[in-house]
Amino acid sequence: MNIYDIARLADVSIATVSRVVNDSPKVSQQTKDKVLRIMADNDYTPNAFARGLGLGSMNTVGIICPDVADIYMAKAVSYLEKNLQGYGYDCILYCSGYAEEGKRQAVECILKKQIDALVMVGSDYGYDAPKQNGWLCSVAARLPVFLINGWLEGDNIYSVLADDQQAVYDVTEELLFAGRKEILFLSNSHSYSAMRKLEGYGNALKAHGIPIDQDRVLYPENAVYAVRDLLLRKRGLHFDSVIAATDELAVGALKYLRARGLRVPDEVSVIGCNNSELSICCEPELTTIDNRVEVLCKTTIDSIMTLLGGDTVKQKQTIKCHLVRRATTDF
Amino acid sequence: MNIYDIARLADVSIATVSRVVNDSPKVSQQTKDKVLRIMADNDYTPNAFARGLGLGSMNTVGIICPDVADIYMAKAVSYLEKNLQGYGYDCILYCSGYAEEGKRQAVECILKKQIDALVMVGSDYGYDAPKQNGWLCSVAARLPVFLINGWLEGDNIYSVLADDQQAVYDVTEELLFAGRKEILFLSNSHSYSAMRKLEGYGNALKAHGIPIDQDRVLYPENAVYAVRDLLLRKRGLHFDSVIAATDELAVGALKYLRARGLRVPDEVSVIGCNNSELSICCEPELTTIDNRVEVLCKTTIDSIMTLLGGDTVKQKQTIKCHLVRRATTDF
Repeated sequence: MNIYDIARLADVSIATVSRVVNDSPKVSQQTKDKVLRIMADNDYTPNAFARGLGLGSMNTVGIICPDVADIYMAKAVSYLEKNLQGYGYDCILYCSGYAEEGKRQAVECILKKQIDALVMVGSDYGYDAPKQNGWLCSVAARLPVFLINGWLEGDNIYSVLADDQQAVYDVTEELLFAGRKEILFLSNSHSYSAMRKLEGYGNALKAHGIPIDQDRVLYPENAVYAVRDLLLRKRGLHFDSVIAATDELAVGALKYLRARGLRVPDEVSVIGCNNSELSICCEPELTTIDNRVEVLCKTTIDSIMTLLGGDTVKQKQTIKCHLVRRATTDF
Repeated sequence: MNIYDIARLADVSIATVSRVVNDSPKVSQQTKDKVLRIMADNDYTPNAFARGLGLGSMNTVGIICPDVADIYMAKAVSYLEKNLQGYGYDCILYCSGYAEEGKRQAVECILKKQIDALVMVGSDYGYDAPKQNGWLCSVAARLPVFLINGWLEGDNIYSVLADDQQAVYDVTEELLFAGRKEILFLSNSHSYSAMRKLEGYGNALKAHGIPIDQDRVLYPENAVYAVRDLLLRKRGLHFDSVIAATDELAVGALKYLRARGLRVPDEVSVIGCNNSELSICCEPELTTIDNRVEVLCKTTIDSIMTLLGGDTVKQKQTIKCHLVRRATTDF
């Protein structure tokens, strides 16, 4: 019988159990009575961890992202920083890189800093295979972990996700309805979000009876010239539209199409993801899936405050994406 | 007689004096002897601050920038983070916003976190008027402060600067030699760096006997559409070239020129600053002044390590910029 079991039986968060243990004034008497009764019924003795949770709050949230030079992550970190300050919370940022070892190290370092909650920014922290992230579950045993656009099942882990799969499904279908059948899919990673996007693409093709051509699924480096050059090398590859998992990749495709003298969107349609500043810098300006990073961040902050305030939070919240139609598509 | 006086008399950094006070093994016996002799000669008794400096190092560097969503700052923060880790230093990031009050608050918060040095990223922390930043001098009395592309004179404050003034002077002169006489200057702030760029522009015009036309110095918001729309509203304004203090502003000018049907660079040349990803996304691709943010960061890290290691560091180091010639100019 541990703090999670008590929380589950009482239908409250572990933070609430901790607050009850510490006799916090933030918890209602009714909730206190319920939790204390369940603790007594189950002979539960709070350990140091449970006692510590409510104590020594530094009003600090730890933020980890792979690389803050990434436009999408920078936007998220900036939003989190500014808005958590509004709640009186400081932020500590660590950049972990994309490698497993760096991620573990970043978490280890940030846990030394007396934080109240940990936010992991970006899909690189959630996977389908839980074994890859077992270590993150052990972190969640110490403090609540929030994943922004990542997903991992586990106690005290909370995800806010953009519905990337549905968004890519919908736009793939729009392309098919517009008569485009040879859709190139560009991705740059096997992150949770990237895999959902690929699924959306594959499922829409399947629903329309079109087999996936593996030659039309490419993984270039996430850099404009890298995409252009890769496509220039693949001269035999034909496609009438592009769905790219990031705006960088989509702009790279535009550079290729310009180099080849192909007209956008008449001959080839292009769709990016993220609705970043890049999508309005290029010509023609890019149609892009806005996965609403600010809404993801706002929802995460709301969840943090709710949880730290002693209430329960849904472990998985999904936000609908929004297609921003600009000049690289004609539907 | 304080720790600065001792440091000055001994020709070492205050960190070295602190290390001597704390009998750190990192300081050579020769330096130790010299510092101790000067302390004895001057009846100097180290106070708690001097004793504390060398103690309780958390191997942590504090980083403050106005907004990490800014591409330039994100690049700097990312570089600092990654490379300080290589020296065994963790980083704590605070975003201060651009307002005075936010800056002071950020510094106050970060000083609570037991950091060994403070890095301020971006020109918004250095000014010509020292009175505006007197508070930063009092921070520098507690730990070394490093300004990246900002300048402030004071004990224990160290600046690494891009030579923005020279770079803009040179490119203005190139435009004049190429026969362009009506040069629009776009800026977005009155930061240290922005003022140096404006100076470079003004000085080059003056050197060629051309008076500055204040109508051709504009301060739009640092956003692509904002620049385009401002220029569209100023229909009477004529110019044959644009120098912009950021790539965002320059891309905004390109959007305006496209909307007006003006050919780039035949009718109007455009030059940006920062060599950001935006400069290769737009069409035509942007000629831009690379102020080499990674070199600025690398030099700053070298300075931090030298200083914390007990050696002296120059208070002002200047890095030459580099003009990246692309398709928006024809010289």
